[in-house]
Amino acid sequence: MVTAEFQRARRPEHKEQRREAILAAARVLATRDGVRTVTLGDIAAEVGVHKSALLRYFETREEIYLQLTAEGWQEWTEALRIALADAEPTPSGGSAVITSTLAARPLFCDLLAHAPLNLERNVSLETVRAFKVATLDRVAAISQLLSDALPGLGPDGGRKAVAAVSSLAATFWQVSHPPETLARFYAEQPDGGHSLTDFPRRLEELTTAVLAGLTAST
Amino acid sequence: MVTAEFQRARRPEHKEQRREAILAAARVLATRDGVRTVTLGDIAAEVGVHKSALLRYFETREEIYLQLTAEGWQEWTEALRIALADAEPTPSGGSAVITSTLAARPLFCDLLAHAPLNLERNVSLETVRAFKVATLDRVAAISQLLSDALPGLGPDGGRKAVAAVSSLAATFWQVSHPPETLARFYAEQPDGGHSLTDFPRRLEELTTAVLAGLTAST
Repeated sequence: MVTAEFQRARRPEHKEQRREAILAAARVLATRDGVRTVTLGDIAAEVGVHKSALLRYFETREEIYLQLTAEGWQEWTEALRIALADAEPTPSGGSAVITSTLAARPLFCDLLAHAPLNLERNVSLETVRAFKVATLDRVAAISQLLSDALPGLGPDGGRKAVAAVSSLAATFWQVSHPPETLARFYAEQPDGGHSLTDFPRRLEELTTAVLAGLTAST
Repeated sequence: MVTAEFQRARRPEHKEQRREAILAAARVLATRDGVRTVTLGDIAAEVGVHKSALLRYFETREEIYLQLTAEGWQEWTEALRIALADAEPTPSGGSAVITSTLAARPLFCDLLAHAPLNLERNVSLETVRAFKVATLDRVAAISQLLSDALPGLGPDGGRKAVAAVSSLAATFWQVSHPPETLARFYAEQPDGGHSLTDFPRRLEELTTAVLAGLTAST
């Protein structure tokens, strides 16, 4: 995939193609190997260029992943918009849709933990501002979708639900994808670690509880 | 604080003193500067020895922090045991106690996010096993305390509540302690970022909702 062309993109549309190629490579590698393990060098190798070429398009490895996180929020919003239209208007109905749309997006779930802890901390103010503006806009859209779909939730409950669900998804996804040492520990447990590593089940149970609690209290 | 003694601890009680000195230094630095920023070299400098001396007592920086995380679970359990005895036996009463005991433990809250994402991934099987055994034991104790304190929660609800609350505390603590760039972004928001960075308020609201949802559904 090495092309001299890649190094010399000058026209805006060519620059955009280069950015897309880099994001596509990062997407493939991080989905396969996990966000944690994929370096800027790995992405450069996948694209077929030297690391320094990437830095003309993105300021850091973290900017690449923040961009994928923003895309994840956008895609999840659209998936929810479609799926919530057919959901049962109850906490368990909403939870089933939230869980299935998140479980179908493993890279986004992986990024949800890395964004606040690592990614947002290694980019410029300009980059983090663009990311947060885009993300908070998606959070507002999802809050609205949820409060429209679930009677009694209300706009405030919708906002709290998005905060809780994205936190739970971030945590449970990491726990359910343990490093090899921890996977061996879980395998030694009476239930084979199932009670800790079954991501969809844990997310759905607690999302139902959160939605039930927020619906009851607002 | 540099002593030749430190380098030559041979008796078990001296070894234990050295371990305690290292943990105390890590505790001070990480509370002041955040877990993320404190390196093994920083801890060594605070203790007054060379980095290599620390590695005779802990296999990695991460083992030091896992040990502090295990201590945090232990201390939080005891604080909850005392505070829940006087709590109002309702979701909001339980939530107030959970929130105040966590807000009083900023280092523990910081560690809660780092443990699954970073710390558990950089230690041996033996170390991660000891950590998980101790922690799961504390989680079971807290589950029991909560199910005893809150009518209708039950043992299963207690376990789910601990999982949810520790996830929410981990996430909201990180969001409420943003890097400088992000703090500037929050300051630009209409409410000064208050809706995102008020850790106790966000934790208490959602803990109340989780407990209400779990109490209603079990």
